[in-house]
Amino acid sequence: MTMSFGTLYRVSIFGESHGHAIGAVAHGVPAGTPLDLKAVQYQLDRRRPGQSMLTTQRKETDTVTFLSGVLDGHATGAPIGMTIPNADTDSSKYDRIRHVPRPGHSDYPAHVKYRGHNDVRGGGHFSGRLTAPLTAAGALARQTLQHLSGGAVRPFAAATSIGGVKARFDPDTADLATIAARIDDHPTRCPDPDAADEMAAVVEAARRDQDSVGGVVTCVVDGLPVGLGEPFFDSVESVVAHLMFAIPAVKGVEFGSGFALSRLHGSEANDTYTYEDGKVVTRSNHAGGALGGLTDGARLVFRVAVKPASSIAKEQETVDLSSREGTTLRVTGRHDPCIVPRAVPVIENVVCIGLLDLWSRARAGGLDV
Amino acid sequence: MTMSFGTLYRVSIFGESHGHAIGAVAHGVPAGTPLDLKAVQYQLDRRRPGQSMLTTQRKETDTVTFLSGVLDGHATGAPIGMTIPNADTDSSKYDRIRHVPRPGHSDYPAHVKYRGHNDVRGGGHFSGRLTAPLTAAGALARQTLQHLSGGAVRPFAAATSIGGVKARFDPDTADLATIAARIDDHPTRCPDPDAADEMAAVVEAARRDQDSVGGVVTCVVDGLPVGLGEPFFDSVESVVAHLMFAIPAVKGVEFGSGFALSRLHGSEANDTYTYEDGKVVTRSNHAGGALGGLTDGARLVFRVAVKPASSIAKEQETVDLSSREGTTLRVTGRHDPCIVPRAVPVIENVVCIGLLDLWSRARAGGLDV
Amino acid sequence: MTMSFGTLYRVSIFGESHGHAIGAVAHGVPAGTPLDLKAVQYQLDRRRPGQSMLTTQRKETDTVTFLSGVLDGHATGAPIGMTIPNADTDSSKYDRIRHVPRPGHSDYPAHVKYRGHNDVRGGGHFSGRLTAPLTAAGALARQTLQHLSGGAVRPFAAATSIGGVKARFDPDTADLATIAARIDDHPTRCPDPDAADEMAAVVEAARRDQDSVGGVVTCVVDGLPVGLGEPFFDSVESVVAHLMFAIPAVKGVEFGSGFALSRLHGSEANDTYTYEDGKVVTRSNHAGGALGGLTDGARLVFRVAVKPASSIAKEQETVDLSSREGTTLRVTGRHDPCIVPRAVPVIENVVCIGLLDLWSRARAGGLDV
Amino acid sequence: MTMSFGTLYRVSIFGESHGHAIGAVAHGVPAGTPLDLKAVQYQLDRRRPGQSMLTTQRKETDTVTFLSGVLDGHATGAPIGMTIPNADTDSSKYDRIRHVPRPGHSDYPAHVKYRGHNDVRGGGHFSGRLTAPLTAAGALARQTLQHLSGGAVRPFAAATSIGGVKARFDPDTADLATIAARIDDHPTRCPDPDAADEMAAVVEAARRDQDSVGGVVTCVVDGLPVGLGEPFFDSVESVVAHLMFAIPAVKGVEFGSGFALSRLHGSEANDTYTYEDGKVVTRSNHAGGALGGLTDGARLVFRVAVKPASSIAKEQETVDLSSREGTTLRVTGRHDPCIVPRAVPVIENVVCIGLLDLWSRARAGGLDV
Repeated sequence: MTMSFGTLYRVSIFGESHGHAIGAVAHGVPAGTPLDLKAVQYQLDRRRPGQSMLTTQRKETDTVTFLSGVLDGHATGAPIGMTIPNADTDSSKYDRIRHVPRPGHSDYPAHVKYRGHNDVRGGGHFSGRLTAPLTAAGALARQTLQHLSGGAVRPFAAATSIGGVKARFDPDTADLATIAARIDDHPTRCPDPDAADEMAAVVEAARRDQDSVGGVVTCVVDGLPVGLGEPFFDSVESVVAHLMFAIPAVKGVEFGSGFALSRLHGSEANDTYTYEDGKVVTRSNHAGGALGGLTDGARLVFRVAVKPASSIAKEQETVDLSSREGTTLRVTGRHDPCIVPRAVPVIENVVCIGLLDLWSRARAGGLDV
Repeated sequence: MTMSFGTLYRVSIFGESHGHAIGAVAHGVPAGTPLDLKAVQYQLDRRRPGQSMLTTQRKETDTVTFLSGVLDGHATGAPIGMTIPNADTDSSKYDRIRHVPRPGHSDYPAHVKYRGHNDVRGGGHFSGRLTAPLTAAGALARQTLQHLSGGAVRPFAAATSIGGVKARFDPDTADLATIAARIDDHPTRCPDPDAADEMAAVVEAARRDQDSVGGVVTCVVDGLPVGLGEPFFDSVESVVAHLMFAIPAVKGVEFGSGFALSRLHGSEANDTYTYEDGKVVTRSNHAGGALGGLTDGARLVFRVAVKPASSIAKEQETVDLSSREGTTLRVTGRHDPCIVPRAVPVIENVVCIGLLDLWSRARAGGLDV
Repeated sequence: MTMSFGTLYRVSIFGESHGHAIGAVAHGVPAGTPLDLKAVQYQLDRRRPGQSMLTTQRKETDTVTFLSGVLDGHATGAPIGMTIPNADTDSSKYDRIRHVPRPGHSDYPAHVKYRGHNDVRGGGHFSGRLTAPLTAAGALARQTLQHLSGGAVRPFAAATSIGGVKARFDPDTADLATIAARIDDHPTRCPDPDAADEMAAVVEAARRDQDSVGGVVTCVVDGLPVGLGEPFFDSVESVVAHLMFAIPAVKGVEFGSGFALSRLHGSEANDTYTYEDGKVVTRSNHAGGALGGLTDGARLVFRVAVKPASSIAKEQETVDLSSREGTTLRVTGRHDPCIVPRAVPVIENVVCIGLLDLWSRARAGGLDV
Repeated sequence: MTMSFGTLYRVSIFGESHGHAIGAVAHGVPAGTPLDLKAVQYQLDRRRPGQSMLTTQRKETDTVTFLSGVLDGHATGAPIGMTIPNADTDSSKYDRIRHVPRPGHSDYPAHVKYRGHNDVRGGGHFSGRLTAPLTAAGALARQTLQHLSGGAVRPFAAATSIGGVKARFDPDTADLATIAARIDDHPTRCPDPDAADEMAAVVEAARRDQDSVGGVVTCVVDGLPVGLGEPFFDSVESVVAHLMFAIPAVKGVEFGSGFALSRLHGSEANDTYTYEDGKVVTRSNHAGGALGGLTDGARLVFRVAVKPASSIAKEQETVDLSSREGTTLRVTGRHDPCIVPRAVPVIENVVCIGLLDLWSRARAGGLDV
């Protein structure tokens, strides 16, 4: 419940967009866990800017350096320190922002909270760049979960709505392995090819219009055992939502049928049980894989609402905190017309931070996982 | 990040539905804060069963006893221990549930997690009854926030959708004081009288049909200062969502325009700034009062999706964990056809737990609140 | 790091000496752990006042009621709530203490910290009575450790110095089972019969003289596996010392040879290894069973310095905070001339809180315990 | 209660002795706090090896790089990330240690705990080198405390016993400013010149004899306000001792008269109050500045027992974990014959981590500091 997250898999992040470096410290990967650092970098590569015309053209290789905790391809059991340099920092454009807050950004509340001492360049500590170390810490958790589960746990995320265009995608029945193999082929990371093209056109139009669009990311985690989560304060939904709302631009999280559940009858909403191959399974998954705050053996399914990027070149009204008068602002620089495709790998990895923590806690409590 | 919640205002809850008592321990109410214990009880009275035909007929007075931390109407600064007795416990009906899990309930995952040792009577520790001590801890936080803010902070919640019927209600412009004064007059706790009657009819139909319906609670907190929340892991949205998902039956949380934001353009979604009476304000509130994880001075607005109560008398398919075969179940007993009206005071108070914690942390960090 | 302690075995305590009740909430006893509640009460009985002329004559049965988390002699996995009533509360004598702080007590700093709102009756929340719920939480941890270890883990404490009289006792070689069986036979809880009688005489003299004496408790925990503790911040010494200094009147903690180690050469201080019955053992135990913050397989040995009870009837100089002048005070009432014998069961059980937490964390990290 | 420490001033450390780098992340320095980074480096320079013949000849400049959280000489309010490179890493000598544990080191329990995966080179994560980032985090806390207190808070530490030679030093009356100004002039960091020379001779003899000696560091913190600390679990003694026992080689901690208190009568041990210049003060300081777990306005005084360095070139008996037989070992390399002088700045700064945390918490609770 502070700048670090987690009880047993605990992550701290640090850094400012235009400072020396950003980074993370992750604690709680059990000694001996095989760690493929290239696979961590691969997740960062999926997140980094400049991958397509749909995203910002800022040039960052986002190469992560592991300072500790990994030796000969295995976790040593010690904290894993990581840094990622800030390379492409053009701080010239931020002088005005010091007193002219960008609408939709943290500028104004951060100015008040930190009494003018926060680093405003590139958004400072509030920058979306901080999702890079978050993703790295998530990718480590992901590998650990896969190792602990013998390969069973597989997280998957995709853009299922962008700019109002909805994809056809059923998270409960989708062949995740097949879809995952080609999700990065389209710059939108949408699993529905028709919708994907339409989404790309919407983003392109927004870009031309110096505007931005938002969307929804659907995340599915397959292969989780029954019983992860703690009743009440650390329900699996609480922990996952806590992490999702830690990602900038996220404004909504729903599990399973989510808000639609609020319109169903109990007789429709309850997922009934049956035996399948000697195993208890549910016939539907309105609950999204969580009952009473615990995973129930079904796929963990949740949807994350991502608002349109706040930085737009279009002129907007705002205020000048020095002159205490109204003014207008065009946020120049290299910005994302749509951050949803880049949010996909962030969400897919960051969810693993919470799941590894809950897994470790379940193991401590005697659950045989 | 465990059975207790919070960094500075820290709450633990304990108890099982049919055990001796349920309760809470709350720490972090500053010494000298005036506490009106009757006002805490009043919030519990709003939550307790049996208030109308729309809710369960279980008879519980839910009288809270304060064991410590309060003296002569003021907080002593020591932890505040509270207990609430379990009076109306008819445990006779739970024998079958030991091996026949109720669909939509925690029964099955709890059975796996606790290896059969959990108390199944009345849902045990997973019972919605545990929201009583949660509400009490929230009511203490509410009073503390009101004291610290000189009366400025006012939380308000209402049912804005039940069984698919939506209320007209604009959380950004509503006259909260007036609405709050009469919100309990209708058993639905819906602020829109026409929708309220329609909702009541839908609930009544579900009750007759041995079924249940869900809904949406909208919560608005007025009067918060700018700057509550911590970037990333403890964003105000993370903390509030964490608490909301700790409430049984909650399956979705969205802030401001939430999922609808994902369909807007940045130029529409950004709340532009202006000066009003010498104060920076936003012209709209799509962000729901939070930017960069910090409160921004606008009303904090969020919506909570509540699934229909899982306990229904209608026959449902399930499994028998002893015989390892399919079976059917009617959940008899006294159940809520709609828990949304009772969720209203729970949400309205529980959100204060997180806000007081963030307030205290902001104060520790030097924010002049 | 607040009013609750522990990561996985987490304990909160609450209560004030003359309030309604004192109590604790303990979380993290794995579901299914057999719990003998009479054995918990037995440890409280060892701690409670009035056992001999060496201790206070306050009449408290200190009967603990378990409100939750235990069913049919086993932990349910839910938090364990406990309360202990305050029976013998004569608050008449505390009016003057409100403004005349007792030397050696928390009165003065508590008055400043809580700005006069703290409950001063009987020491309020600072009372040694709070060691009763601490001991109960410790006794639960103790049973859990014994269960998890198949009976191997056995904590033992004894008074090894009282009023300057030192007992002969070698914690590394002592036959703990035999000594434990008769340690309560003498009111001093000293394992050396000759020293015990001498100690009793010293205490009796102090009592007659309206004074008090302190002492040292030696605690030994046998049967711990290798590897409990976390490097640096949660070294086994850090965790144990943290808990010991949470016990009122404790002013020093040393492990193994402790302060005497500071006078040895490395060649004397290092405990050399050898194989014994195929097992790595140390030939000596200057380290007290902890190396690099981890248990090393040897007995965990530490000594705890307990200051003489601050409440004495002898006249002492102090100040009057109202008149802002010097004055004198005799602390009347029923006080312990020596709290060391009662500190013995407190220490013996409270240490288990930290050890169970570290055990659970080691298990989460993959240690096969 | 894990690899990070603190509630509001929270510190994580990472790194292994022969890995890429060691470092720390510190959170909770209020935005706008003036930070003199050279003064942080100065404390690291005091700690680093090679300062005299009394310490190891390992060559490490221990230059700390600040990656984030500091801008234009002030804290930005964001987490402060720091790294320190490992320069002089000769890993050739550690092959044998993989299976031949050094007596008195973490080697054996770490091998068991991490199942052979821990980095053994230079002690890995257990290395005393990790006290460098600890000291840096402490130095930041120290500056913050000095800023918050208007210069009142001044921590001071000195070697008061080495190799059995005791210094004359009265922590309650010493002129700390004067002594602090010249404490580094003698390689022992002992405030008593005669004892200092005697100590140096003892260390030199141990070095010649391929042995090592331990000692005691006395730490005094002047200028603390009344009321820092939380009753029971986070007493000021608990927090300080927790941090002290996180420093390798520390085996005992006592406050005020500590173990000697256990031999006094209450009438001697109680520090009586009087008014001095209109302020409540104690006439003595047996309690070491802490009553009821709270600072009482007197100097915070504690003594820390440091065992002799475990690494000695003298031949010692040990075991070979591969052949499962006894063997002998000479720990070659560059080791400290006495680590006490280097422990002085570590202790003096690390104590500030806990005090800043308690200060921040007191401020959150309403204490006017």
